[in-house]
Amino acid sequence: MQRLFEKVTIIGPGLIGGSLGFALLERGVCEEVVGVGRRQCSIDEAVRLGAVTSATLDIEEGVAGADLVVLATSVGTIPTLAQRAIPHMKESALLTDVGSTKRLIVNEIEKLLADDSGIGFVGSHPLAGSEKRGVQAAREDLFDNSVCVLTPTARTKAETTEAVANLWTAVGARVVLLDPAQHDSILSRVSHLPHVVAAALLNLLADSDMPFAASGFRDTTRVASSDVNLWTEICAHNKQEILNALDALRAELDRISAALGRDDLNALRDYLNRAKERRDSLNRGR
Amino acid sequence: MQRLFEKVTIIGPGLIGGSLGFALLERGVCEEVVGVGRRQCSIDEAVRLGAVTSATLDIEEGVAGADLVVLATSVGTIPTLAQRAIPHMKESALLTDVGSTKRLIVNEIEKLLADDSGIGFVGSHPLAGSEKRGVQAAREDLFDNSVCVLTPTARTKAETTEAVANLWTAVGARVVLLDPAQHDSILSRVSHLPHVVAAALLNLLADSDMPFAASGFRDTTRVASSDVNLWTEICAHNKQEILNALDALRAELDRISAALGRDDLNALRDYLNRAKERRDSLNRGR
Repeated sequence: MQRLFEKVTIIGPGLIGGSLGFALLERGVCEEVVGVGRRQCSIDEAVRLGAVTSATLDIEEGVAGADLVVLATSVGTIPTLAQRAIPHMKESALLTDVGSTKRLIVNEIEKLLADDSGIGFVGSHPLAGSEKRGVQAAREDLFDNSVCVLTPTARTKAETTEAVANLWTAVGARVVLLDPAQHDSILSRVSHLPHVVAAALLNLLADSDMPFAASGFRDTTRVASSDVNLWTEICAHNKQEILNALDALRAELDRISAALGRDDLNALRDYLNRAKERRDSLNRGR
Repeated sequence: MQRLFEKVTIIGPGLIGGSLGFALLERGVCEEVVGVGRRQCSIDEAVRLGAVTSATLDIEEGVAGADLVVLATSVGTIPTLAQRAIPHMKESALLTDVGSTKRLIVNEIEKLLADDSGIGFVGSHPLAGSEKRGVQAAREDLFDNSVCVLTPTARTKAETTEAVANLWTAVGARVVLLDPAQHDSILSRVSHLPHVVAAALLNLLADSDMPFAASGFRDTTRVASSDVNLWTEICAHNKQEILNALDALRAELDRISAALGRDDLNALRDYLNRAKERRDSLNRGR
């Protein structure tokens, strides 16, 4: 693997940031990975596990001299941390984030950068992860065979997009470019809606139903074990799109209820068949 | 393991029936397992894999002399096959089924049995399985640590329930007794609703969303790959309870939309937190 950067700083070396650190170091994509964390025990753990080569609690010190800074904290804190990091970054450095929403984050960070800023920013969203969190769950191969969305805007320089795309490609992801609003619309359906629906499926149960929840239910609701604060922030960031997705789901549920209510088993079978074909095609795509 | 039966006949040695056959034979619960199938190639495969000791296409021949007959076909065909099997069963034999719905099936089968019939029937529903089907997917340990619901009624003799409970306990399941209607109500929430919701989440996607469906979406919708005909029958059998569960889901979605719509992030966080606590408790229960 070609060395792409000398020094990369990861703000928030948790599941995603830590996995990126592991992958960058093990694949020789950069020489040095600096972790910036909020708690001494987390950054000590990141160093001990080898997800970063060094770590600090001081964001100014952490970003100084970095060729690339990756904001890998929860979506609600990314703009604030960008604001604290930018004044201390090298003039020629690159900046990206890994937030699960893009429109608000990209807009906020672009506002922080002057038109003549040498810092090149493009938003990233690696579609990888799990319901687990923390550097303990980080894995060198987390991004292998995953998709990473980059969201350049009219203000993004082509060389910034290219350099950040090379980063994600180097750790195993396939890069796809989307407009930030288009990203948020798609993710509301493939990620945010399934998440809140999993919560709804759990919350509608009676306590006495719980012993009968078997493997199908467990799979369907696994994502509801994810970090609650992070997901509250995601919902707040992508409010309108998630409301739209909830409406789209209501329309689908109405179709199911209508077919069932009029005993139209052919319509129901066609409905389930269309879903099965789509779901089976996801397996073939792997 | 104590031998409980000499000869058990499994009508439909597929995923569930085949796994039961493997478990009964490997754990020494019975001497002989006869498979009854519809197609020569399926029953040959069941014999070849060792899920049954012998097999036939002829239901009359298959059930003759059996101490226990297990109906392990799809819910829509269970009552008809019971009707064909009962006249050829031993007077003292036991009968059970493994259907995912119980109220209609139990009612139909009890109607087939005269009050003075020596055949003892109780409905079973082993809460185990997967989106896969066929004896190729059968596993000796499928029922280990699972729950198996038995649904005795006022007409069920205590010794029938006890003998069938012993069968499921012998293959690794924990037996729970429920009224058939109570079973169907609970299952509508923990199994049937998640299934149709998975289909809805798939069907509301735009084709262009599909490349962005990552591991969370895959897990949430895995059950939608299940057999479509079987699930259409389940929906038809449990229509009213599933319609009720769909209404309960709509009420939950309305709560989420309302909290999000008024930017009440505390309510949303509490909602997601309640779901996470429930989901985490399922993991601890294993």
